[in-house]
Amino acid sequence: MSTLKRRLKQLREDMAALELDAAIVTALPNVRYLSGFTGSNGSLLVTGRGATLFTDPRYTLQARTETAGSGVRVVIAKGPIEPALAGRLGKQKRVGFENQRMSYRTWEHFEKALPAGAAMKPLGAALETRRMVKSEEETAAIRESVNINSQAFAAALTRFRAGMTENDFAAEIEYQMRLLGAEKPAFDTIVAFKKNSALPHARPGNTRLDGNGLLLVDMGTFRGGYASDMTRCVHLGKPSAKTRKLYEAVLEAQLAGVDAVRPGVTAGSVDDVTRGVLRKHGLDKAFVHSTGHGLGLEIHEAPRLGKADATALQAGMAITIEPGAYVEGTGGVRIEDTVLTTPTGVSILTPTAKELVIL
Amino acid sequence: MSTLKRRLKQLREDMAALELDAAIVTALPNVRYLSGFTGSNGSLLVTGRGATLFTDPRYTLQARTETAGSGVRVVIAKGPIEPALAGRLGKQKRVGFENQRMSYRTWEHFEKALPAGAAMKPLGAALETRRMVKSEEETAAIRESVNINSQAFAAALTRFRAGMTENDFAAEIEYQMRLLGAEKPAFDTIVAFKKNSALPHARPGNTRLDGNGLLLVDMGTFRGGYASDMTRCVHLGKPSAKTRKLYEAVLEAQLAGVDAVRPGVTAGSVDDVTRGVLRKHGLDKAFVHSTGHGLGLEIHEAPRLGKADATALQAGMAITIEPGAYVEGTGGVRIEDTVLTTPTGVSILTPTAKELVIL
Repeated sequence: MSTLKRRLKQLREDMAALELDAAIVTALPNVRYLSGFTGSNGSLLVTGRGATLFTDPRYTLQARTETAGSGVRVVIAKGPIEPALAGRLGKQKRVGFENQRMSYRTWEHFEKALPAGAAMKPLGAALETRRMVKSEEETAAIRESVNINSQAFAAALTRFRAGMTENDFAAEIEYQMRLLGAEKPAFDTIVAFKKNSALPHARPGNTRLDGNGLLLVDMGTFRGGYASDMTRCVHLGKPSAKTRKLYEAVLEAQLAGVDAVRPGVTAGSVDDVTRGVLRKHGLDKAFVHSTGHGLGLEIHEAPRLGKADATALQAGMAITIEPGAYVEGTGGVRIEDTVLTTPTGVSILTPTAKELVIL
Repeated sequence: MSTLKRRLKQLREDMAALELDAAIVTALPNVRYLSGFTGSNGSLLVTGRGATLFTDPRYTLQARTETAGSGVRVVIAKGPIEPALAGRLGKQKRVGFENQRMSYRTWEHFEKALPAGAAMKPLGAALETRRMVKSEEETAAIRESVNINSQAFAAALTRFRAGMTENDFAAEIEYQMRLLGAEKPAFDTIVAFKKNSALPHARPGNTRLDGNGLLLVDMGTFRGGYASDMTRCVHLGKPSAKTRKLYEAVLEAQLAGVDAVRPGVTAGSVDDVTRGVLRKHGLDKAFVHSTGHGLGLEIHEAPRLGKADATALQAGMAITIEPGAYVEGTGGVRIEDTVLTTPTGVSILTPTAKELVIL
């Protein structure tokens, strides 16, 4: 059975468990996951017997090519696609929808279009839960994305020149990604020097990369539709003892976090591990975000490696491990790998070394 | 009165007209528009008396800096921000929400958090309608974005080499954007050669830019948070008479579309004009999308320059005019400028010439 057919079969199993006759899928990563369609406008109607993709005339050729062999039918709507899809709901009584993603207005549109006696019912995280566990094809795509990302970092470092701005260096990184075959950055590349590194979500600006200081780079690519994510710190000039200590503490937390990943442990317990290490170093209050997240067709997917997430890790889950500590005055350190949960533990996909590089 | 205070005042006028006591704003471009906050996680609660921004600890410093002078209070939530915001709803009875944008689940969360007798009420397109008309500051930002975009195109053309791939050329374009100070591409850059140009939403691939053929480039930047959008076609080698004719027809439609822009005409009537020109050339069926769209803090904003949009254009609206014709075998042509509706007509912001450049 093809990958796409297997995914539709799994959705139908979930629909059966939720007592649904049909499901409307409008979130594009879910549409792609089920049908292969990668356009910017498309929705799926899945019933017990079939699946239909609705898109617009810009995608006539692409929709047919990408869904070939999936068994998904294609309907090209002349106007908006929601009414076209609603018109095919027929006698479906219990119609699932992505309540976490669909806008209130779209929900309302479908709700009103239903025949009397039919109702919209939440699909919850059914698709996102399936998507957590990656197939071998998906894992291969993530590996390629991760490798390109690390190669782009290495290539950008060879083009580093003292005096260039954060923005210039971010431009170099993204240029190298593209030349290596990435479709685009998976998120806004972070290049943060000195005090800017203490802002976990800093944006590259006109600060010149010159003199002595910590330089944090957080970067990811999309390649073949799949995301990668990595953070590394380098240091311009000799780091102070304080910076070195901060770096070593975060590295210890990161290694412990990676080491904690294996099937059966909860996402939250991995977060406990990294946080525990940073607490030992008096840095738990400086760690103001969660330990990591799943990634795949989206840069942020389930599970979330944070306190509240009781998801048990399973073989095939691709996640990030990225503890950080942010200290006003000294700067911030974050170290992040993309890793894969394996049947026996963990495989670190990111090939870039984690020693503090001195430039 | 500061820009942000004026926008909050306008929202309160809209709230009064809709008989709302409060409004919850969760769509990030709307949050930015009202509060100045540019982080990736933030929601606003606006009441008759005040406005409060809810975000998380990563943005403590940034939120205070960016909202300074706006009168917006900042609350840093330790966990998810929705419950923190819901906890401050107090005795508000009629609470507006962005029904076009808010997910069903978030709506449901707030709906359940409301005290007895209170209700969630649609805000509709109140904020998006206000955002259609740009202030002078916004127009200046869009001009800068448009100029950087055109400079990046010119710089990338000087680096064009026969034999590079579509993807290489897209990489050059995006690199030049960044070096010129753009935050990022406003959308996935399109570089489409020969038959690929006949796909209105082609993605750059490994096709080599070599030999004779039409090359379509659709590119935009974000600069200072504001979008630009431009499409140009160049030709490698001497174009055929058929290609030249196709180009001239689309250019005629584009010029007629620009010429039709002035206060008081409807968005739909501008679409009629470009479509009419292409019909005259037997190309109306080859024009498979709408004529253009508003742009600003988002790359696609209201109005939509399509058949069904009865929005009357007003001075200060920044829109694209981008008719195209896509012919299998010959290729596709699209020509697009970012233009500004002025009190007396139209100002073309895009400085790049529209003659068919032969490379």
